[in-house]
Amino acid sequence: MSSNTGMHLVGGRQEAGSGSEFGSFDPRTGEPSPRRFREAGPDQVDRAVEAAAAWVSRKGYGTVQERIALLDGIADALDAAESEIVSVADRESGLGENRLSGELGRTTGQLRAFSAFLRTGDHEDRVEDLVFDGVKLVRSVVPIGVVAVFEASNFPLAFATMGGDTASALAAGCPVVIKAHPDHPETSELVGNLAAEVVSSMDLDGILSVLHGPSIELGSTIVESPAVAAVGFTGSVPGGRALMDLAARRPVPIPVYAEMGSVNPLVVTPAAAESRAEEIAEGYVGSLLLGAGQFCTNPGLLFVPDGDAGERLIEKVGDRVRSSGDHVLLDQRIAARYEEGCRTLTSRGEVLAESLADGPGYRVRAVLVEMKPPLEDIEEVFGPAGVVVRYSSSEELIRLLEGVPGALAAAIHAEEDEPESADLIDVLAMRVGRIVWNGYPTGVAVSPAMMHGGPYPSASDPLHTSVGLAAMRRFQRPIAFQGVPDAYTSI
Amino acid sequence: MSSNTGMHLVGGRQEAGSGSEFGSFDPRTGEPSPRRFREAGPDQVDRAVEAAAAWVSRKGYGTVQERIALLDGIADALDAAESEIVSVADRESGLGENRLSGELGRTTGQLRAFSAFLRTGDHEDRVEDLVFDGVKLVRSVVPIGVVAVFEASNFPLAFATMGGDTASALAAGCPVVIKAHPDHPETSELVGNLAAEVVSSMDLDGILSVLHGPSIELGSTIVESPAVAAVGFTGSVPGGRALMDLAARRPVPIPVYAEMGSVNPLVVTPAAAESRAEEIAEGYVGSLLLGAGQFCTNPGLLFVPDGDAGERLIEKVGDRVRSSGDHVLLDQRIAARYEEGCRTLTSRGEVLAESLADGPGYRVRAVLVEMKPPLEDIEEVFGPAGVVVRYSSSEELIRLLEGVPGALAAAIHAEEDEPESADLIDVLAMRVGRIVWNGYPTGVAVSPAMMHGGPYPSASDPLHTSVGLAAMRRFQRPIAFQGVPDAYTSI
Repeated sequence: MSSNTGMHLVGGRQEAGSGSEFGSFDPRTGEPSPRRFREAGPDQVDRAVEAAAAWVSRKGYGTVQERIALLDGIADALDAAESEIVSVADRESGLGENRLSGELGRTTGQLRAFSAFLRTGDHEDRVEDLVFDGVKLVRSVVPIGVVAVFEASNFPLAFATMGGDTASALAAGCPVVIKAHPDHPETSELVGNLAAEVVSSMDLDGILSVLHGPSIELGSTIVESPAVAAVGFTGSVPGGRALMDLAARRPVPIPVYAEMGSVNPLVVTPAAAESRAEEIAEGYVGSLLLGAGQFCTNPGLLFVPDGDAGERLIEKVGDRVRSSGDHVLLDQRIAARYEEGCRTLTSRGEVLAESLADGPGYRVRAVLVEMKPPLEDIEEVFGPAGVVVRYSSSEELIRLLEGVPGALAAAIHAEEDEPESADLIDVLAMRVGRIVWNGYPTGVAVSPAMMHGGPYPSASDPLHTSVGLAAMRRFQRPIAFQGVPDAYTSI
Repeated sequence: MSSNTGMHLVGGRQEAGSGSEFGSFDPRTGEPSPRRFREAGPDQVDRAVEAAAAWVSRKGYGTVQERIALLDGIADALDAAESEIVSVADRESGLGENRLSGELGRTTGQLRAFSAFLRTGDHEDRVEDLVFDGVKLVRSVVPIGVVAVFEASNFPLAFATMGGDTASALAAGCPVVIKAHPDHPETSELVGNLAAEVVSSMDLDGILSVLHGPSIELGSTIVESPAVAAVGFTGSVPGGRALMDLAARRPVPIPVYAEMGSVNPLVVTPAAAESRAEEIAEGYVGSLLLGAGQFCTNPGLLFVPDGDAGERLIEKVGDRVRSSGDHVLLDQRIAARYEEGCRTLTSRGEVLAESLADGPGYRVRAVLVEMKPPLEDIEEVFGPAGVVVRYSSSEELIRLLEGVPGALAAAIHAEEDEPESADLIDVLAMRVGRIVWNGYPTGVAVSPAMMHGGPYPSASDPLHTSVGLAAMRRFQRPIAFQGVPDAYTSI
């Protein structure tokens, strides 16, 4: 086997695949990478899941102390390899070294945030009371079992191999089987191998597998494995829904925590437009075009009041979009879908501004379109496309927002003294998972209070978050011990 | 319309149905009740859901103070009507006045437990932190939306009209549409009307509907209503799974919180059998035959060690089962399924004891069967049937328990000084939602630490409980407010 053969990580072992050949492309040039992978075969899925299942237990794999050391050890190993990781990820994603360096910091910060959380003991969510004349009832948690993680394309580090789903599952004591994203197999291989060294040094081989392949069958085989107990997914609505449907049809259905597409509204009130149209326009475009618009929290839907101030705002947004040049998308399929989405938008609305896309690779133009209601069937256009909706009164605005599909986040730009803001919060609260005030939704902090999820189709289960410490809850099953001696219930 | 026509509650209005006629039977005699219902039509479902949807809002219907008053008011109204409720419920269920009087106390206690919880403010699950250089991030909750509640047959009060699902949904601020169980429509009508008077006196008409009907179509129509956001269900595995499948296929899938069938293991260790075989036998049979065995926490699966002490235990259980007389089941279908389940059990195992069933109505015999492994495909036999499994060593016991399907609860009878107990806890913890030590699983306390749920098929979503204060979480969706002024985020 040549040194340019990409390897799967099956339990503790590196193995070549047996399926059809694939590899990544440089999005800036469209050139294929010399490193070739062969898709993982069903036997590799079986062995990966089996190796993981052997570690499923009430206390989780290892001790809590070992889990803390593992998460910190992986974070250290990734930080130490920053320049190599960033360089490989940049070649495969075209996202740029600055962004990827920041994303790696977020990734390792996330791993350390979970280890710090484990140190507090609060992750056990332990509740005690006395029932039936003095019998002690203790509710604690057990790991849900083997977790399958499906990597995202748009965050090759923070929502990928050692991203939020993996970090929260490992913190919860669950072994993981990761389906790497075919857009960045070399990044996943590198990160997976760095993590695997730490895993192996702690004699925990088996808790981590990384399987590569572009086919739907590979994902299906993983989700249908009887020992898989839960799925974490970040990606498109059709992709997430397919996994949801598959999981629901299993003999034993399992939860799929899918964080999917989202058209996130950003509302500008008349007073805010009046006092800071230019500032909001700048901020909006910055958020819209961040990462070539490939953020699940991209503020795609901009609500602007009729009138001079709103006009100024839209004009400024248009200017910035027009001069934004080209934007490199992650892969050819995403670029093609973006073009298709833009065609749908422009056929339904009026093009206000377009930038110029010129050059090799998966370059696209940024687009700003004005649309009229109804907005019910509006779908995410993944990439640098913004939609402007004008409104004439606060009543009309509320009516428009009532028609917006479920979303991850909304933003409101308002002044302090506008009584209508209460109504805006109330209507948006029933449609989104997070409301940002005088800010932009694209930054998602990893913190105890974070909620990154929302009503369908933005997420599969609106009760959970895929970012922040509460993400661990997805992989912890509550259990009550009634009258059981303490010695048997400790973790 | 004669006074003997049963009525639906649609929003605030009492209405006759338009579908086919049905009514309840007295399980002790098999005699039909003179009160006849006609199944609710699709238009009634639509209007009930529409009336409920009008109350969906960020803060929930009414204020928290109003919700407290509502829950307490309903509890008071039900307590005041105790003798009538118990008498009607007894006629429709045959469960006996003592049991039903206790169940009503549990039902009203549950309503008051949720109102007391609302008084603490802890139900908001509020978490705050600072992100991005000092922006305040607050995570709170919003009501998930309209909740459809499917009543259970076996708890005509505590898991029915004003039972745990309704109480937790109303506490969470969600309007409810209840599908009454056709075994006890008059009980549901009476309890629903008592509750509706309180609802109406508080000008909250619309938050409560009670629809009657035996058909699968009625349930499907409710679950498929676009404005329904979540489902609570207590019943059989096929019934629960059908709703899960239906909800998963909706254009917008919604969570179904189904608490379903369960074969709950009860393990007796050699030392426990040695020291208290007779006491455990008495306790086991009491738990097994409680409510004619129609408890989801029925300890159907008894693991007994080989040897003299185990023999004594089994003999005593057999004696008690043999002399237990007849047992009145809830309806004809349940009785028929019980007989079918017993036939399956007896074809696979050896009958150790049988009681005599003699008399009218839905009377069945109690049965004790000894079975050999494998136990993987064992299914709940709803009714007074116990299965004995003998084991020869702690290794064999562990192996047997590893093959037990997901269950709501398990019990372990052991002495303090048996080191094998740690292994028993560890293996059972991965298969059940609650472990009872030297006790019986049939009592389920309504308390903060309670977990009444478990791995499939005992429940649809193992992360949630249908009993206890945490049951509210099923109907609360987290939301994060980032930098939003406090005035807009209060409840």
